[in-house]
Amino acid sequence: MNHQPLLARRAAKEVPALFRAGAASPRGVIPLTYGFPDPGSFPIESLVEATARVLRDEGHEALQYGPIAGPRPLLALLVAKLAAEGLAVSEDNLLVTAGGSQGIDLITHLLVDPGDPVIVEAPTFIGALQTFRNAEADLYEVTLDGDGLQPPRLEDVLRDLQAAGKRAKLIYTIPTFQNPAGVTLAGERRRALVALARRYGTMLVEDDAYSELRYDGAPLPFLYSLDPEGAVFQVRTFSKILAAGLRLGYVVAPRALLPRLLQLKVDVGTSPFAGHLAAAFAGDGPGALDRLTAHIAELKEVYRARRDAMLGALAEYAPPDVSWTVPQGGFFTWLTLPEGLDAGALLPEAEAAGVTYIPGASYFARGDGRRNLRLAFSFLPADELVEGVRRLCRVVGEAAAR
Amino acid sequence: MNHQPLLARRAAKEVPALFRAGAASPRGVIPLTYGFPDPGSFPIESLVEATARVLRDEGHEALQYGPIAGPRPLLALLVAKLAAEGLAVSEDNLLVTAGGSQGIDLITHLLVDPGDPVIVEAPTFIGALQTFRNAEADLYEVTLDGDGLQPPRLEDVLRDLQAAGKRAKLIYTIPTFQNPAGVTLAGERRRALVALARRYGTMLVEDDAYSELRYDGAPLPFLYSLDPEGAVFQVRTFSKILAAGLRLGYVVAPRALLPRLLQLKVDVGTSPFAGHLAAAFAGDGPGALDRLTAHIAELKEVYRARRDAMLGALAEYAPPDVSWTVPQGGFFTWLTLPEGLDAGALLPEAEAAGVTYIPGASYFARGDGRRNLRLAFSFLPADELVEGVRRLCRVVGEAAAR
Repeated sequence: MNHQPLLARRAAKEVPALFRAGAASPRGVIPLTYGFPDPGSFPIESLVEATARVLRDEGHEALQYGPIAGPRPLLALLVAKLAAEGLAVSEDNLLVTAGGSQGIDLITHLLVDPGDPVIVEAPTFIGALQTFRNAEADLYEVTLDGDGLQPPRLEDVLRDLQAAGKRAKLIYTIPTFQNPAGVTLAGERRRALVALARRYGTMLVEDDAYSELRYDGAPLPFLYSLDPEGAVFQVRTFSKILAAGLRLGYVVAPRALLPRLLQLKVDVGTSPFAGHLAAAFAGDGPGALDRLTAHIAELKEVYRARRDAMLGALAEYAPPDVSWTVPQGGFFTWLTLPEGLDAGALLPEAEAAGVTYIPGASYFARGDGRRNLRLAFSFLPADELVEGVRRLCRVVGEAAAR
Repeated sequence: MNHQPLLARRAAKEVPALFRAGAASPRGVIPLTYGFPDPGSFPIESLVEATARVLRDEGHEALQYGPIAGPRPLLALLVAKLAAEGLAVSEDNLLVTAGGSQGIDLITHLLVDPGDPVIVEAPTFIGALQTFRNAEADLYEVTLDGDGLQPPRLEDVLRDLQAAGKRAKLIYTIPTFQNPAGVTLAGERRRALVALARRYGTMLVEDDAYSELRYDGAPLPFLYSLDPEGAVFQVRTFSKILAAGLRLGYVVAPRALLPRLLQLKVDVGTSPFAGHLAAAFAGDGPGALDRLTAHIAELKEVYRARRDAMLGALAEYAPPDVSWTVPQGGFFTWLTLPEGLDAGALLPEAEAAGVTYIPGASYFARGDGRRNLRLAFSFLPADELVEGVRRLCRVVGEAAAR
């Protein structure tokens, strides 16, 4: 009964498939691929208790349609949580979303018409690239160094666009513990970035999925807090600090733009059940944070140890001319292989040797990244990380010697 | 710190705000407005038990990122549930979504470029209208009668478009217990509709949010089952049969188109937690349905009694020249007021008299519906429905007498 519909332009071209959690690695292959949270850290019994409380005490709201912006207990929690992080916002700045990814999608729909310029970091988050491609954005890249996005390079792109009579609709950045590069935008660059967005009349999208998970060093100001009610959207998530499976995130937005985001959020609101549950888990009473704060402190211990194990193994086993970033937080480090090697071409050999990773090219809008690869240290226990790195380094060493 | 971004076209024009559950009616006003499920029917204790089971036995999957198409236990449940309803599909036909609304949104993104023709029923679901407007679709309407959409009227539109060198990208229809009209597409019209979609090279989107809640009469074939793997997408939801607050729905799609829908679903998959929970609630073991089936049977008793109460009150209190549809299922009846009356203009008077409703004009793409209004019988107990209808009929009667 074949019937061929006319597809929209965005769907008619080939786009790369998003990763799937279900695609398990072959037996015996250590996956250093996915930025998944540690399943051993899920707070099962606290969630059992919190769910029972939500269903019995707040079931009439948690199981019903709710406000599009988000359930009230969660909004109260977010205001308190952000205040504790130094970000003063009210409920009028908040929109609860299905993970951070829906936040990026909504902001893209708000700003981007087909053909509009969008500036991304190189490398950047694969899901965001997919979202911008679905919107038929015209993608421009700005390279990163060890201190994150380079403002002069960004200004070059903005100036070139202006000279061509165009204006970037948004600059997408992951300033803190970047995915995939593991680097963090330096403090003075944060101010420069906001100033550039204002000068060239564009918006910053600050994807902050990891800032709660800092293992070293002092917190840096959010881009949003450098320009509240101004040129910044902040995209956040509970995926890394509570449970990815709840699909719970939020956008911090200038008050004036929130109603427009609401109009584009046609899913009748993100799960009230998940929102009530996150708030009930976080602590007892409106805006209480103590249980969530304690849980995040535990997570930091777990992930710091894993990061240290992976970096230690790299220091021990990496052949000469391999370099990597040293993340102060988050889930990833980013490797650069010796000249002449190609991380994509090397992957079958690595998998045959019992380790797998995501080659760097996937993280670039316009190619590049052949010598790079991303390693995640979030998902596996330390001994598997060490063994995975050992296998990888042997394969790289052999290839470099050829 | 004002900073005015350039908005995308879809966001720069005014669109009607979606309804919000939080917007409570003024004290003492009976809301016959929202198609919300009966909160008294939420199966609280069964959900407490199922959640504890999911968290303890399946927590590593339910709290983690999952497959974009949906969690395996839910897909197994859906295959079994649809088979029991006479729809033979496999997991390759299924995509789990954030309620039915995200399904409509994804299909729209798959098919519709700005300016593309989309055909809707008049009246139709407000959320779908908003979705099509966000996509900058060019909307065409086909009127309903007591047996649903009229195939000759539909063919007029399809033929006119063809004559103008255009092709409708999709026809959006709610064939069973239509929202807002409460009517059901007659059996022979279903075949005619599918034949027209095929003849004119367009896709049908069968929004089926209510078919499980049939109070009278025999089930009719799904449009999807009249043309499997062909010209039909079916959009479904758990909002009416389990809990709207889980935001859980699904799309039944031709196998060949499913990967393209997955590519557009950039939210990293709908909540694995909600999916595992729905499957665990439905019954013990893969694909088990017994608890869900029993729950739906209870819901039908509740809603049938409410429908009967509302229709009984209309028969008792309605002034002459008011007519209404007699729904065989679902949540709504649709009133037509005497000539000369305007349901929107009458609303303040009705609210002053202690009852509120949604005026018909909201449900039309291009105006019209002034004499119509929608009444929902799902949310309130029978005595409040009767009193609400009594107040409404008094206001209408007084206005008609002026």
